[in-house]
Amino acid sequence: MRIAAGVEYDGSAFCGWQYQDHSPSVQVAVEQALAKVANHPVRVACAGRTDTGVHGVGQVIHFDTDAERSEFSWVRGANSNLPYSVRLLWARPVDETFHARFSARRRAYRYVIFNRAIRPAYLHRRVSWEYRPLNVEPMQQAAQYLLGEHDFNAYRAVACQARSPVRTLYQLDVVRRGEFIILDLNANAFLHHMVRNIAGVLMSIGAGEAEPDWARQVLEQQDRTLGGVTAPPDGLYFMGVEYPAEFALPNMVGADPPGQFGF
Amino acid sequence: MRIAAGVEYDGSAFCGWQYQDHSPSVQVAVEQALAKVANHPVRVACAGRTDTGVHGVGQVIHFDTDAERSEFSWVRGANSNLPYSVRLLWARPVDETFHARFSARRRAYRYVIFNRAIRPAYLHRRVSWEYRPLNVEPMQQAAQYLLGEHDFNAYRAVACQARSPVRTLYQLDVVRRGEFIILDLNANAFLHHMVRNIAGVLMSIGAGEAEPDWARQVLEQQDRTLGGVTAPPDGLYFMGVEYPAEFALPNMVGADPPGQFGF
Repeated sequence: MRIAAGVEYDGSAFCGWQYQDHSPSVQVAVEQALAKVANHPVRVACAGRTDTGVHGVGQVIHFDTDAERSEFSWVRGANSNLPYSVRLLWARPVDETFHARFSARRRAYRYVIFNRAIRPAYLHRRVSWEYRPLNVEPMQQAAQYLLGEHDFNAYRAVACQARSPVRTLYQLDVVRRGEFIILDLNANAFLHHMVRNIAGVLMSIGAGEAEPDWARQVLEQQDRTLGGVTAPPDGLYFMGVEYPAEFALPNMVGADPPGQFGF
Repeated sequence: MRIAAGVEYDGSAFCGWQYQDHSPSVQVAVEQALAKVANHPVRVACAGRTDTGVHGVGQVIHFDTDAERSEFSWVRGANSNLPYSVRLLWARPVDETFHARFSARRRAYRYVIFNRAIRPAYLHRRVSWEYRPLNVEPMQQAAQYLLGEHDFNAYRAVACQARSPVRTLYQLDVVRRGEFIILDLNANAFLHHMVRNIAGVLMSIGAGEAEPDWARQVLEQQDRTLGGVTAPPDGLYFMGVEYPAEFALPNMVGADPPGQFGF
């Protein structure tokens, strides 16, 4: 039987989603907790692997099991075996054709910038800090150049393993809420470091280091080395995944991350 | 010379504001950082001592020094000697009649409840978690009984050392924003555990365990043992302090805590 599940996590406690020899990963924490509930080893696949320090709000996974458990038992059982930094939000049996990664149609990420002269204290590792005052208007202008289907080669990590650098960006909103600047992104899929590289370019533009058109130039030149700095992972939240309606997954994400509580 | 300063901190890293033998306090972190800038030992007084796990957004302190430093040097110097969980937000020379605690006219606290079946992951220790669905309407009704000048004996810790239990509560707002319920409180001063005891009573009322009128009964009976549970410190934020205008302090608080980013 195949089970899909939603996962929320604090990325600052982990070396990222994926299993690593040297340090704790969200994947291993989830697999070990599910194995205790299933009474057999469990291997999970996820919708999107996140890097060290990146937070998960609406991560989706699937795994196969012979164990007969209620949805409630999967959630309750896994959570009682997980550290507080990771929670299973829901679990549901799905058709065997469902794949957390390959069935996904769209992914949503949020990047939260805390824009204040002084570094954040209690939001440390939960937001990205920029001390230079950022002007959102040129950032919004720049964002328009990136919408649609493009070759995002200049916005992906050199180590990115995706075969094609072409992605379709459906949404890239930039809004200011007090000292927070929120980037909301939605695409069919994202390349390695794509959100953080876009955030890096937009932050330079917001700080007045470059004109909005620079975002377009970087895109068109398709050269990562022209794309400026990769913004830090602290403010990045994997918000959710859209699947075809036939899989009838809950449209449920975790707690709204900083900047959009309660909108 | 007397200097006033604003402090923001992540309470989960400390045993509370005040110096303790056994574990790290915000007070000691701040005093040690300022001593390095001043080149002499520094003792600070604060507007309100917070308990273990309680966060500071708009804490205000003062200290006396012979060292001649610019406002910028105090802030920059202290922050480069503080852990990331504590930040000095501003510093300003004040009249010697100013006292962070005794000059304060009003204090503001916020209590953030995360109301979801599943415990929070990346907001762990930054919000108070309640799995039972809370109804804010009876909580709002109950809040009305507590407004104004009252003997808050039933809402203070047994160990509270304040001479008088009489306080004037100017504001007690209860609002829901998605899965967050925010309590905003403003009073001339607060007793030990007063906000957490009020939160505990309101949460029981929101969960349907008691009628709104129970908040009034607890108040009038003036007996702490009738007041139910003390809500956990994780969701409590010391938001700010109001001083007489003559001291000309910056009206500056830190980052809006969960639930009110950007309102």
